[in-house]
Amino acid sequence: MAKLVGNAIFGQSGGPTSVINASAAGVITEALKMDCIPKVFGAANGIRGILEEKFYDMTQEDPKELELLKTTPSSALGSVRYKLADPDKDPTDYNRLLEVFKKYDIRYFFYNGGNDSMDTCNKVSKFMQKAGYECRVMGVPKTIDNDLYATDHCPGYASAAKYVATSTMEVFLDARVYDTPMVCVLEVMGRNAGWLTAATAIAAYKGQGPDLIYLPEIVFDMDKFVADCKKVYEKNNGKLIVAVSEGIKDKDGKYISEYGSDLAKEKDSFGHAQLGGTAQVLANVLKKELKCKARAIEFSLLQRCAAHWASAADVEEAFTAGQKAVQYAVEGVTDHMVAYKRGEKNGQYVCEYVLVNLSEVANTEKKIPREWINADGTGLTQDYIDYVLPLIQGESKPPIEDGVPRFAKLKKVFATK
Amino acid sequence: MAKLVGNAIFGQSGGPTSVINASAAGVITEALKMDCIPKVFGAANGIRGILEEKFYDMTQEDPKELELLKTTPSSALGSVRYKLADPDKDPTDYNRLLEVFKKYDIRYFFYNGGNDSMDTCNKVSKFMQKAGYECRVMGVPKTIDNDLYATDHCPGYASAAKYVATSTMEVFLDARVYDTPMVCVLEVMGRNAGWLTAATAIAAYKGQGPDLIYLPEIVFDMDKFVADCKKVYEKNNGKLIVAVSEGIKDKDGKYISEYGSDLAKEKDSFGHAQLGGTAQVLANVLKKELKCKARAIEFSLLQRCAAHWASAADVEEAFTAGQKAVQYAVEGVTDHMVAYKRGEKNGQYVCEYVLVNLSEVANTEKKIPREWINADGTGLTQDYIDYVLPLIQGESKPPIEDGVPRFAKLKKVFATK
Repeated sequence: MAKLVGNAIFGQSGGPTSVINASAAGVITEALKMDCIPKVFGAANGIRGILEEKFYDMTQEDPKELELLKTTPSSALGSVRYKLADPDKDPTDYNRLLEVFKKYDIRYFFYNGGNDSMDTCNKVSKFMQKAGYECRVMGVPKTIDNDLYATDHCPGYASAAKYVATSTMEVFLDARVYDTPMVCVLEVMGRNAGWLTAATAIAAYKGQGPDLIYLPEIVFDMDKFVADCKKVYEKNNGKLIVAVSEGIKDKDGKYISEYGSDLAKEKDSFGHAQLGGTAQVLANVLKKELKCKARAIEFSLLQRCAAHWASAADVEEAFTAGQKAVQYAVEGVTDHMVAYKRGEKNGQYVCEYVLVNLSEVANTEKKIPREWINADGTGLTQDYIDYVLPLIQGESKPPIEDGVPRFAKLKKVFATK
Repeated sequence: MAKLVGNAIFGQSGGPTSVINASAAGVITEALKMDCIPKVFGAANGIRGILEEKFYDMTQEDPKELELLKTTPSSALGSVRYKLADPDKDPTDYNRLLEVFKKYDIRYFFYNGGNDSMDTCNKVSKFMQKAGYECRVMGVPKTIDNDLYATDHCPGYASAAKYVATSTMEVFLDARVYDTPMVCVLEVMGRNAGWLTAATAIAAYKGQGPDLIYLPEIVFDMDKFVADCKKVYEKNNGKLIVAVSEGIKDKDGKYISEYGSDLAKEKDSFGHAQLGGTAQVLANVLKKELKCKARAIEFSLLQRCAAHWASAADVEEAFTAGQKAVQYAVEGVTDHMVAYKRGEKNGQYVCEYVLVNLSEVANTEKKIPREWINADGTGLTQDYIDYVLPLIQGESKPPIEDGVPRFAKLKKVFATK
């Protein structure tokens, strides 16, 4: 097949991770090497940057800073949450994309994101095909939620998991130093899938983790929760650590975090009363029911941007996924996402890079299999531990300057219109 | 001077840090080496363990686990917050301590803690002197608050500072990925002294930190705060990061966190309404005043137990402080705390270990000098940066097992009564 000659554009989408920039580094540095790709653009804030003709000329960047991207968290080019319309109903955005692609002779489109972003990627790919505009469209996965279909795991998940597991062990040690009762409720990200909350089970596996784990895969029952907690609290002399997904829901589909919002409405002289999230609601319940001190800890943004403690395996895989997307596209592949397949070599885990149809992956969510959750719904089985341990191996080493990581600083020179 | 022969006891007190166990490792391993110290006991939960004759026989521990203590966060022996009475008013506890010391032939007492713990140490020392019981009493400092008098800095501070600075940089990158306004309020520990909140200024110094920093050293004014924030918010296209000490107070001495407690009292069907801390109160204010999304992030317990990202300098100094306490005591010193003095060798920072009278250090708090805070009261000067950078150098390397740190697991064999 004759090589398709034209420019490339790369965009980042959805919530940041510790390694989304590693994929960016993979795509950009690989694309810059290709003879058939004269110019590489980085879209400012994903698809919106393309629509608005705001993109950076990546050839202007210092190669050293592009190298640093590999260990820099968050989305260096800026991200976006923008849902493209159904092209049959409203083709405005698609026509505009085609116009921009033509104007800049963009023949390679790489998009890095989660479910919604793969949907965007898929729609763009199909539209360009229909319009007869030759363009290779490749998705690069990412999400700390680990809920993308057809890939063994998602770039970004392992680093968040390693951080959550480690921090949970540290909190475990901290929370039991006094000879008085102490209850801790840890809140981990995850609205629909409990993969990241499951990572606290790694800490439990090491003997320094939560007593109980509640995932969105299991319907949450407050009475059972209180009974579960009471049992551990009494057995452990008032020491109890619980991990919960932010997205746990009761049998009526109501988020537990919403239990708090009934309280104190309009009572606030300084803004909206915000009673905190799921962990705070549950800590309040336990305070009352166990008559003890209970602390809510949210890992908040920290869990998805802790590049200082990323999984080296994750960083390498994310970088390679970016490279592979470019290599496949140049070889003629389009309309696919690069996915991970679990392989084995001499009894050791290896990551294999495979291709999945974009239409197959778009908008499908992968949850934790029921059989990996214990019968009681309060912990993970060894299957999960066996699944996750290979992914969190190795510590990423961001270069250090003045005792703190030296993160990339891009020049972000806009491409001339 | 003839060596004093007798057993040693070591206790940990107050809030945990990432390196308090490094000092424990220093004291215990050094004491175990001394011919004049036949037995080394570790008090369970500090002074309370001694009063209750609950202490561990440290000779029973695996040397490998004692070595691991150096990189294990929190207080492995358990901690306590227990204030001894004035011995002139109520000598009960002191008489009991004397009884226990005699029973176990304890001639060396090492106590590791902050202000209150040095007060305990001081009172015990003076009582034993008065009682004519020969015993060497040595304090070993620790506190993430960095507020101990007569020492250049405190063990535990630098590791917490390194973690807070790094995490702030990571949140900075995460919080500005979208092209929509985003306000983040970071809450850092520190009731009376702003040293740890000041560490966010390291992130600002690296160009990836908060726009505004509020410390307890400066009286907090809500109107000025809102005006400060509005200015930055408008200048930066809706991007604003603020760091605050949990302990900031208004001109009437009221904690800003208490502003929230007026709200929603008794309204809670699941326990006490707890509106979160200082950051949440301020995020609510900014939501209303700037009409934007505002997120509160508490570093919570994470900041004081993040041994996975401790300062290597801090770990080594804390370990050495423990060793020095034992060496000085064996040489005949008593009634002192080991303190740090800032030295220089070939233009490089070195830590020197000096002695301070316990009575001098007990119950005195050291705050940030006013001249290290900018005129406006919203940031730190270069003086602070120059002070702190040498302290956060090097990354502590806890051994890794299964992708997460391998923390010490002590056997904790109780000493036979």
